[in-house]
Amino acid sequence: AMNIGRSLAVLMKCGTDSVSLFSVSPAAERLRHILGEDDNTPTPTIFTEMDTLQNEGGEIEWKESARWVKFEEKVEEGGERWSKPHVSTLTLHSLFELRTCLQTGSILLDLEGYSLPQIVDEIVDRQIADGLIPPDLKEKISFVLLRKHRHQTKKPIHRSLADIGKSSSAASSEFVRRLSQSRSMNDISDTPSTDQLKNKFMKKIPRDAEASNVLVGEVDFLDKPFVSFVRLAQATTLGGLTEVPVPTRFLFILLGPQGKTKSYNEIGRAIATLMVDDLFSDVAYKARDREDLIAGVDEFLDEVIVLPPGEWDPKIRIEPPKKVPSSVLNLNELGQMNGSAGGAAGGEDTEFPAPHELGEELKFTGRFAGGLWLDIKRKAPWICSDIYDGFHIQSISAVVFIYLGCITNAITFGGLLGDATDNYQGVMESFLGTALAGTVFCAFSGQPLIILSSTGPILIFEKLLYEFSKSNGIDYMELRLWIGIHSCLQCFLLVVTDASYIIKYMTRFTEEGFSSLISFIFISDAIKKMVALKYYPINRGFKPDYITSYKCECIAPDQGESANPFLYFLYLRCFDVWFNLTDMDWSQLSKKECVNYGGTLVGNSCKYVPDLALMSFILFFGTYSMTVSLKKFKFSRYFPTTLRKLISDFAIFMSIMSFVGLDMLMGLDTPKLIVPTEVKPTRPDRGWLVMPFGKNPWWWYVASFVPALLVTILIFMDQQISAVIVNRKENKLKKGCGYHLDLFWVGVLMAACSFMGLPWYVAATVISIAHIDSLKMESESSAPGEQPQFLGVREQRLTGIMVFVLTGLSVFLAPVLQYIPMPVLYGVFLYMGVASLSGIQFWERIKLYLMPPKHQPDFSFLRHVPLRRVHLFTLVQIVCLAVLWILKSTFLAIIFPVMILGLMVVRKLLDLMFSQHDLAWLDDILPDKDKKTKEDDKKKKRNKKAAEPESDEEPNSSVPPPVKIPMEAIESHTEPVPVHVNPPAQNQTSDCEYTDPFLHLLLCQIVVSCVNV
Amino acid sequence: AMNIGRSLAVLMKCGTDSVSLFSVSPAAERLRHILGEDDNTPTPTIFTEMDTLQNEGGEIEWKESARWVKFEEKVEEGGERWSKPHVSTLTLHSLFELRTCLQTGSILLDLEGYSLPQIVDEIVDRQIADGLIPPDLKEKISFVLLRKHRHQTKKPIHRSLADIGKSSSAASSEFVRRLSQSRSMNDISDTPSTDQLKNKFMKKIPRDAEASNVLVGEVDFLDKPFVSFVRLAQATTLGGLTEVPVPTRFLFILLGPQGKTKSYNEIGRAIATLMVDDLFSDVAYKARDREDLIAGVDEFLDEVIVLPPGEWDPKIRIEPPKKVPSSVLNLNELGQMNGSAGGAAGGEDTEFPAPHELGEELKFTGRFAGGLWLDIKRKAPWICSDIYDGFHIQSISAVVFIYLGCITNAITFGGLLGDATDNYQGVMESFLGTALAGTVFCAFSGQPLIILSSTGPILIFEKLLYEFSKSNGIDYMELRLWIGIHSCLQCFLLVVTDASYIIKYMTRFTEEGFSSLISFIFISDAIKKMVALKYYPINRGFKPDYITSYKCECIAPDQGESANPFLYFLYLRCFDVWFNLTDMDWSQLSKKECVNYGGTLVGNSCKYVPDLALMSFILFFGTYSMTVSLKKFKFSRYFPTTLRKLISDFAIFMSIMSFVGLDMLMGLDTPKLIVPTEVKPTRPDRGWLVMPFGKNPWWWYVASFVPALLVTILIFMDQQISAVIVNRKENKLKKGCGYHLDLFWVGVLMAACSFMGLPWYVAATVISIAHIDSLKMESESSAPGEQPQFLGVREQRLTGIMVFVLTGLSVFLAPVLQYIPMPVLYGVFLYMGVASLSGIQFWERIKLYLMPPKHQPDFSFLRHVPLRRVHLFTLVQIVCLAVLWILKSTFLAIIFPVMILGLMVVRKLLDLMFSQHDLAWLDDILPDKDKKTKEDDKKKKRNKKAAEPESDEEPNSSVPPPVKIPMEAIESHTEPVPVHVNPPAQNQTSDCEYTDPFLHLLLCQIVVSCVNV
Repeated sequence: AMNIGRSLAVLMKCGTDSVSLFSVSPAAERLRHILGEDDNTPTPTIFTEMDTLQNEGGEIEWKESARWVKFEEKVEEGGERWSKPHVSTLTLHSLFELRTCLQTGSILLDLEGYSLPQIVDEIVDRQIADGLIPPDLKEKISFVLLRKHRHQTKKPIHRSLADIGKSSSAASSEFVRRLSQSRSMNDISDTPSTDQLKNKFMKKIPRDAEASNVLVGEVDFLDKPFVSFVRLAQATTLGGLTEVPVPTRFLFILLGPQGKTKSYNEIGRAIATLMVDDLFSDVAYKARDREDLIAGVDEFLDEVIVLPPGEWDPKIRIEPPKKVPSSVLNLNELGQMNGSAGGAAGGEDTEFPAPHELGEELKFTGRFAGGLWLDIKRKAPWICSDIYDGFHIQSISAVVFIYLGCITNAITFGGLLGDATDNYQGVMESFLGTALAGTVFCAFSGQPLIILSSTGPILIFEKLLYEFSKSNGIDYMELRLWIGIHSCLQCFLLVVTDASYIIKYMTRFTEEGFSSLISFIFISDAIKKMVALKYYPINRGFKPDYITSYKCECIAPDQGESANPFLYFLYLRCFDVWFNLTDMDWSQLSKKECVNYGGTLVGNSCKYVPDLALMSFILFFGTYSMTVSLKKFKFSRYFPTTLRKLISDFAIFMSIMSFVGLDMLMGLDTPKLIVPTEVKPTRPDRGWLVMPFGKNPWWWYVASFVPALLVTILIFMDQQISAVIVNRKENKLKKGCGYHLDLFWVGVLMAACSFMGLPWYVAATVISIAHIDSLKMESESSAPGEQPQFLGVREQRLTGIMVFVLTGLSVFLAPVLQYIPMPVLYGVFLYMGVASLSGIQFWERIKLYLMPPKHQPDFSFLRHVPLRRVHLFTLVQIVCLAVLWILKSTFLAIIFPVMILGLMVVRKLLDLMFSQHDLAWLDDILPDKDKKTKEDDKKKKRNKKAAEPESDEEPNSSVPPPVKIPMEAIESHTEPVPVHVNPPAQNQTSDCEYTDPFLHLLLCQIVVSCVNV
Repeated sequence: AMNIGRSLAVLMKCGTDSVSLFSVSPAAERLRHILGEDDNTPTPTIFTEMDTLQNEGGEIEWKESARWVKFEEKVEEGGERWSKPHVSTLTLHSLFELRTCLQTGSILLDLEGYSLPQIVDEIVDRQIADGLIPPDLKEKISFVLLRKHRHQTKKPIHRSLADIGKSSSAASSEFVRRLSQSRSMNDISDTPSTDQLKNKFMKKIPRDAEASNVLVGEVDFLDKPFVSFVRLAQATTLGGLTEVPVPTRFLFILLGPQGKTKSYNEIGRAIATLMVDDLFSDVAYKARDREDLIAGVDEFLDEVIVLPPGEWDPKIRIEPPKKVPSSVLNLNELGQMNGSAGGAAGGEDTEFPAPHELGEELKFTGRFAGGLWLDIKRKAPWICSDIYDGFHIQSISAVVFIYLGCITNAITFGGLLGDATDNYQGVMESFLGTALAGTVFCAFSGQPLIILSSTGPILIFEKLLYEFSKSNGIDYMELRLWIGIHSCLQCFLLVVTDASYIIKYMTRFTEEGFSSLISFIFISDAIKKMVALKYYPINRGFKPDYITSYKCECIAPDQGESANPFLYFLYLRCFDVWFNLTDMDWSQLSKKECVNYGGTLVGNSCKYVPDLALMSFILFFGTYSMTVSLKKFKFSRYFPTTLRKLISDFAIFMSIMSFVGLDMLMGLDTPKLIVPTEVKPTRPDRGWLVMPFGKNPWWWYVASFVPALLVTILIFMDQQISAVIVNRKENKLKKGCGYHLDLFWVGVLMAACSFMGLPWYVAATVISIAHIDSLKMESESSAPGEQPQFLGVREQRLTGIMVFVLTGLSVFLAPVLQYIPMPVLYGVFLYMGVASLSGIQFWERIKLYLMPPKHQPDFSFLRHVPLRRVHLFTLVQIVCLAVLWILKSTFLAIIFPVMILGLMVVRKLLDLMFSQHDLAWLDDILPDKDKKTKEDDKKKKRNKKAAEPESDEEPNSSVPPPVKIPMEAIESHTEPVPVHVNPPAQNQTSDCEYTDPFLHLLLCQIVVSCVNV
């Protein structure tokens, strides 16, 4: 027990009123006064060091025992090791004792101090003047306070093994020697030592920091505690007092009689923790007298969180939370916040420097090309930084990663397009088109992080178009050119009318539906392609013993039976060889030759290829799992953070290299990446330019407007939904986006590609997300224990341009690229698909189905929405996705964008099924932003509380209305009681609300009429 | 701000002394009085339910909003979901308000209550009598307090979708209907409802629990709070008041005026948290008056842990810690602890019911066979439970797991022994021997969890012995029999002299060295065996196109050149076929036939076998990783705990099944487990019994004493170290062990196996650990949020016996077992090796090398020993292991036991290198036990504190001595100051201390002389 019990007993006797909750206390009034002053200078960050008095080997010295930047780091018992940063758990006890100390000790505010001896002199003199200590103790106290400070800077881990044995014996004589050297009373030097300057810990401390030194110790000549709290007028470097060369501003000294070291230490920890508290440090800087400081302690006490002793072991060091209150709104900003008038609304703006609200950029301007003009105006200031921001090691890994994704995509789609169009557009066209479109887009678009690629719907459209042309005798390339031109013009029309603004009516529901569908397609494609490697079947019944019976022989064709001998002649001409077919040694021919010359392969091993299937599987799965493991490695405990981050950044590159190496080592003929090596059209009968006139009747030039409309809708939806996903608030993009500008360039490229007979390109969601993920930045110099903050994405144009330039140059990189086995690339594909899924809340909600409620993670939406409703919402999404998936697998894929609109309609119907409160949590509010707002609120509240008279009403909390006792119910029980329904806790007006149902109707009608055409 | 600031200000003015630390407060004195009474009845566990007053749809009702067994579970906003159990984070605020409430409200202790209406009547009457409320409010308050209580028992998740739409519209009319039904003032029924009785949550609450109900609400007719704390004389079931049919003992009611719901809730949470606190619940049961309760609150406040507001977001729900203070010493035990005199030493005994201290069982009795007698006496009472404890589903998985390990081992060692001894001992002998020895040992030994197996050193010994016999013309089997007999006798000698007691001088260092070596051997064996599957090489340069050139043909031998035609005749006879060798169609022969008939295999595919190598790799690695993943699955969030536990228990079985299935699906000729199908000796010229006389000269019968000595040492060390590892305190074995009894049976089996010509058996560390791991028990009905406690191991003889009976019957199981591919079993081996490593602290310390200090886990030894010393200690262990590994790989493996002794010598030398303090942390103290002791200490301290006058000195804490200021240093600085060295914090006397160096010397000499012989 402690004096708190007694204190309250006394308090009650002194006659305070019974339940006096929420009246403004004197402490709050005081703080309001001092913090409310219009003082715009931000208070510096405080670094606190606590030193305790040690008597080691007879020499008295101050030894650093803990330090605080934001969290506590303790020197471990062995004295050679910093603990992990942890939340300071204090005892209430020590806080009350600290309060008493501040009440009884001497407080020196704004002391003019230039050196420690002088300051110590002043402190001791003040104590003597206050009659707290007898004058004869001055010398002793000064001696103690001026002893040398030993810090945790040296790393004795590297001491040689030879030293270990002698340390104990040699130590004492060493100390004696040093003791005799330090003849003066003052062990402290005035200049920072080299140890101080070399200390790497400095980079963890903000540049503007000032130090607060806590000195705590036990001496034998005092009979009551000697307490002193000093604030210097100016921060001054006091020699070796502090571990780092940070000037000292505050000093707290507690020397006490023997026997209570432990409680002195606790008091020291309490003041140190207070000093790094946002609010108290503010108070400490601005306090006018002792009472202000005590009011600060009281405010702190008012805010503390208490853990019951039976449920928590104080020995457990609490890891710093991932999100600290006011982690963003830093100490420095606190001051500004106080100063700025109307900070209530301004809080969020400081968080997002560049306004890139979905609504802002997608506003309907009403002017001709108003949106485009705004886009250009928005992007213009970033032109230079778009280039130089790209110079970073991370960009290299991003370029490699995205490049590999792009060429794999180009090859896959190129191959498929070649099949679909009889090689009018093949791999070569795909490469050149990707390179051209990508480079132009990344160089000039509004959102250079978006990666253009061929997409499935376009592929299906081309296929249908080619089949139509062939069966109707129309020239495909010319028709396609006209469709491209029309589509380009339609895009321009959409751009100048600001039509992209309708995208802002998309919610999480639609967005997630689209992006998970694309991810699933990626994953299923990767797996399908792996399964499709059936050219290399496994001989399942193989028995090693019967190896002699496994053979595959080339049998000469039976001349009479076989087809036209002229064909053989042709084949042989092709190979530029001349054989006498009958005299040939058929058994010497390779499989391909045998087939070419008309031979028959006979034998039970012909259709099998040993090892390749399993090897492909190992490469595929190995690449995927290695990438996943290396990416996760960032969160492991091993190796320094920088190295881990590097490994994680280059995870994909390293996995690819490893498995390419393994493949080379095995020397198996796994399917490799084949890149065209010559720049010429895949089909010899077409050139690099398509002429617009001459082959088709003139009316086709007009009629192609109709298919062009379908292409335009397709492109518009695909492009803009991907852009919305890329521009999500979670990504913290700062340079703004340009939906109109993007669409403009897509339109231009449509026309350009059509003229050159290259495929059409549009934003590819999964690769774009991968691009962003590989460019994410995190804060480096955070306080120890603080989680690195996700700062945003390295927004620049360089990586994109590099990727596509490399894609263009791939023709010349063929000798290197040919070593990459396809299964490895499919593994990368699989990873991309899975990784883009993992960030989606929908996916998290699916997982909830498998978890019993007590094991579910503490998602904020789970705290507010009944699980049943969450599951129902997820189920609706799953059903929608399943329907989309089925449609996608049919020829209906071409109306894919309409299906996305269908999603939006389903979302609209959900309004009937779910309350707006539930939807606000599940659909509208982006989780990150939401948290942010709450934090800001909290911060503001705390601030306001100190600065203004209090009010209990939190504007956001869903306080149920007071229970009105309907007394008539007791008497009659007959009349119906009016129903009070709680208004849902609308924390903020969401960006994506369905404000205008008419607009939706319009939108749907446009689409439906287009499809009907 | 709150009244705490003001309260202390008032306090100071009232003139309390300045730093009044550690004087005994009135609260502590009070508690000492009431808790110190000799009252042996343990206080029941308290279940607390908090209900808040809700006005939903016009109907007033009490709605459950949170509950506590040990941790808090909150009803989430949606009202349909329990939060995860979490540590209750309170505000200091609410605690102080609660204190005020208890001071001003009415306290009714030991109220005779039988029904809620009567109790409510009493409460309201008391309030009126005390003048706290006007009499006219009685009816209103009673009405409110008797409203229906709605609990979280119904699971509306299963409501049909059809209901969802109408709920909002139908609700109000439903309520009106119900309201009109409840015409009486009392909504509460007297009998427990079926909902209550069906509630599954009941199993989480201890049987003796009593409920405490907290009712908190806001009403419009009060102008100041109505507070009442009631303790009933007897716990009474008050109808539907509580969620579960637990009788209510305490009631806390807080009704207050409107506008402060939030703070009322907080006060409710505060009292609820207090009620489940160990100490306060004790106080609540024993309080005599209001002041006692307030003293309890003060004591609680004194112990609370405070988190600074700037470092912790109160919104974060803190997960219950893994180890709660006093998690073992439960609420119930608290009362007993208080009562029992001298509880200071008794604390640990209650934790380990059966005394199985290493020292106790390995005591040197000094009597003839004293240890053996004690072993038998110790094990006899468990005979029955050794059988019936085995009937559990877990046993099945354990049997399958260990059985597969055993037969794999038997086959491997059988094969190797067969090679080494020209099949005198082959796979058949290995199977029978394993079955015989294992069954006997598991049925009669002291530690039936130990699994016997052939081990490496024995294998090497047999090999050397066979070579020696063959080269000297001595009959191997007879010699071996005599060695076995001698060794058996020597074992008996060791048993009767209690020689096993020397094992207790083993420390963690030696133990870890031994077990990690064995684990490494397991791992390397598994990998070696996989690599050894080179019978199935991969054709690395294979080009699918040249498949026609890959063939393997059998070419008839050139008759003239080839060897004796008689040999062919023989071969053909063997196959019972008669061919004309020259007329035979050689190309039709299989590989084996071709070789047998003297043909030559020609072709470039002869030496390759497709797919098998990669398939083997996939099976091996797949089995291993699937087992690891499934084992880890226990800690995932998915599926209910029971299912997860089942999956984890059957992880190995499921992985084996999956990969056997995959193997069957692929139909490849992977190497399969081949089990002999007939019971007959591997070598036809030996029988099942070895005759002791007749073949060798008589003096060999005597001389075999010398090699027998080596075997004995080998067996002794191998057996007993494994036993020590199995009997580790961490495993919490309760039935005691029997080192002497074990050795006795090993000796008997030595002789028996020698007579039957079967291999010798000794304890196998890795499989024994796997056996224990597969039988671990965890507590099931812990309080929500409490980590399941590891209770111990299912100690019984059934699983062991089953395993070995199955091994014996494997001969008949061959048709099933033949489907298991060897790579799958090697995967299981790999898992066993890795799993047995993971529990070793040595391994954790190796990992520390790769972690930067700030990422290292919070091991207790790291808090106390400098990292440098930890690394050095680990390095010594690594070097020792490396040396052992190298020696093990040479013929020196035979002196393996001596090497273990070498480890003990190295450990002895470490005393010179490390301080005893460091060694205590790194080597001696078992971490589990250590923590336990500390916790107990803490608990005791807390208890003692309340029960006795306080003292600040914790006996265990390493308080540095007070700094003595050598004032002469100030004046002269010449005389050396005496050095004070802190005594190391010896928390406990370790069991394994080197008390007697002479004994060690003796031990070493014995061994050295043995080796020299």
